[in-house]
Amino acid sequence: MRVVGLMSGTSADGVDVALARIHGTPPRISATVERFVTLPYPADVREAILRIAEGAAVTAGDISELNFVLGEVFAKCALTALRRFGVSPADVDLIGSHGQTIFHQGGTRRSRSGHSNFSVRAAGSTLQVGEPAVIAARTGIPVVADFRPADIAAGGQGAPLVPFADYLLLRSAKFSRIALNLGGIANVTIIPAGAQPQEVTAFDTGPANMVIDALMRRFTRGQQMFDSDGAFAQRGRLLPGLLRTLMEHPYFAKRSPKTAGREQFGHAFVEEILSRAAAHRGRPQDVVHTVTILTAASIAQALVKMRLKQGAAAWELIVSGGGTHNPLLMAQLAALLPSFRILPSSAVGIPEDAKEALAFALLAYEAWHERPNSLPSATGARRTAILGKIVHACGTEHG
Amino acid sequence: MRVVGLMSGTSADGVDVALARIHGTPPRISATVERFVTLPYPADVREAILRIAEGAAVTAGDISELNFVLGEVFAKCALTALRRFGVSPADVDLIGSHGQTIFHQGGTRRSRSGHSNFSVRAAGSTLQVGEPAVIAARTGIPVVADFRPADIAAGGQGAPLVPFADYLLLRSAKFSRIALNLGGIANVTIIPAGAQPQEVTAFDTGPANMVIDALMRRFTRGQQMFDSDGAFAQRGRLLPGLLRTLMEHPYFAKRSPKTAGREQFGHAFVEEILSRAAAHRGRPQDVVHTVTILTAASIAQALVKMRLKQGAAAWELIVSGGGTHNPLLMAQLAALLPSFRILPSSAVGIPEDAKEALAFALLAYEAWHERPNSLPSATGARRTAILGKIVHACGTEHG
Repeated sequence: MRVVGLMSGTSADGVDVALARIHGTPPRISATVERFVTLPYPADVREAILRIAEGAAVTAGDISELNFVLGEVFAKCALTALRRFGVSPADVDLIGSHGQTIFHQGGTRRSRSGHSNFSVRAAGSTLQVGEPAVIAARTGIPVVADFRPADIAAGGQGAPLVPFADYLLLRSAKFSRIALNLGGIANVTIIPAGAQPQEVTAFDTGPANMVIDALMRRFTRGQQMFDSDGAFAQRGRLLPGLLRTLMEHPYFAKRSPKTAGREQFGHAFVEEILSRAAAHRGRPQDVVHTVTILTAASIAQALVKMRLKQGAAAWELIVSGGGTHNPLLMAQLAALLPSFRILPSSAVGIPEDAKEALAFALLAYEAWHERPNSLPSATGARRTAILGKIVHACGTEHG
Repeated sequence: MRVVGLMSGTSADGVDVALARIHGTPPRISATVERFVTLPYPADVREAILRIAEGAAVTAGDISELNFVLGEVFAKCALTALRRFGVSPADVDLIGSHGQTIFHQGGTRRSRSGHSNFSVRAAGSTLQVGEPAVIAARTGIPVVADFRPADIAAGGQGAPLVPFADYLLLRSAKFSRIALNLGGIANVTIIPAGAQPQEVTAFDTGPANMVIDALMRRFTRGQQMFDSDGAFAQRGRLLPGLLRTLMEHPYFAKRSPKTAGREQFGHAFVEEILSRAAAHRGRPQDVVHTVTILTAASIAQALVKMRLKQGAAAWELIVSGGGTHNPLLMAQLAALLPSFRILPSSAVGIPEDAKEALAFALLAYEAWHERPNSLPSATGARRTAILGKIVHACGTEHG
């Protein structure tokens, strides 16, 4: 099957489009990325997403409109990408669309102590927008979307979902592997050699690019949305006092499974960094440098804490995501994790930037075949589920 | 197949649960209601729905929580109903869930002149809540939900959807029929004898119970949610001046296809009635009486305006919905439409209160079989679509 994966992360800087070939049935499944592109969000759409995701007051109509507008955006991204790839939509069998998260509160933990607004309680909730019926109508391709609710309904955190794909694509009888994705948030999937699904664990270690990106936007007044090639950070120096303080963030001490997002490392965290940086007399490049080191240090600390059983071969750390393009971050990871064999995911056949989009193509493929596609050991769910809603297509207007 | 239909209308007074037996393939399809019950919403949930549907300021998190809480409510309603029916969830093949509409703006018309908040435009949008993944998880039954978006994506108003079911269930080679549903809003589906799908038309004539219910709540300070058996109205008398004024509402003069809702006949309309009623020195029972007559008169006027072609037999007006229990309303309809043969829908095998829930069971059944289940002549869509999102179930926690 030829499957398009559409992904937009919490930083909402654009839509990742992966065109994948997938065949087989787990555990024997093959998924390869044929082409990949990231297309930017229109600026006003991105701004609305960030505003709403940060908890701005809106009406049901605003959310409804955003859902349909994002459906049009995702559809356009899919069609634009396919045109660039020289592939006709008629030759694509399925689209897996993650949607844009505008709210997420995983099930198990907080809900027990947290309050509920209603006499009827929900364990947690999550809201992804980007109407799949619009994507199906514009492309003429069936869509599987909205993967997180079914995991929350099964008692899970609704995240992380990518470890299911990590397990299918990276597990090995011989090698113990950790998949590390450096997106807005840094997350790891730990797959011991020969592991069964229930032996796989996964969690978010903390921020990857989210905080760096926010700082760059602030320091450059929106001229630079991220630190390209880590060049800005490399002109700065470490502020040890600031790093020490930031490492005391309670999230890093929290036990896994745990998920991070804008709630922990969003606007408020950036404000805190800026006010503390002023106390440390840090220049902008020093602050970005220090936060880049924070990312590497929090990942390394989390992995060291795990006391992974060391077999004959070294653990492989297979790295993907935008952060792989940041040499300072990668060098720091190598320095802090000398016992690991660090590899870019392309070394095992998965283009660094395409991994998450590929994962949602794979989740869609499994849902389409009515097979469970969740990993309870990663999300804390009580059982597996078939994640995703299926929207059939009836051809497009023009054919 | 045994299919449960779950429906909650704009008045949000409860969840209709119909258990239906459906078999066959259109045009030869059979759908019968085995059992039916309406279960009330928890008061706080209903209040939140109405507040949010009237445009209250909320966060994305509020909408997200409401979606999951309503998923739990719908699941509980389905399970409670099945227990009362003495039917095990394991013996049910599918659930069709309409969800609770908290925003709806149909596509074709307004969007052309209306403004958009974004550089990317959506033709219209609609938002139903009541997470189907929760319903599937709690019941262990696959769910088809969220039918309206695909019609809007195809250029339609996303409403009305019930005419698709009306056409399948009521069309006749011999009889020309109009299905009239008296829910919160009154809607008609016009099916000439021997009609092809594209010859079927449908529209909302205006309010049915929505305004009466709102007045009853106001006059009884929430003690009565509706005018049971029309008893309150029957104690009053017609205020001709008020009726004349209300009949001048621009909606009644608008050309069909047209859809009505809380936007036209919600809070603001009720306030207008109350202030005008004061000028006419109307007692509460006179006001409810007059608005009951308004319902019948606006329906009759709409049908008379259509100049329906009269064949050998009289047109049949097949009436369903809560309004069928209002003798004053039914008597007025009979008086105003003497050339019609007025029948309760139970006369053609569809229990009056169960028709809408049955319709969504039938729409789900068609979507499950990957067949188009929309009627473009009713919604204004450019083409048919497979309405509804399919959520697979993996059994429940307990088996």
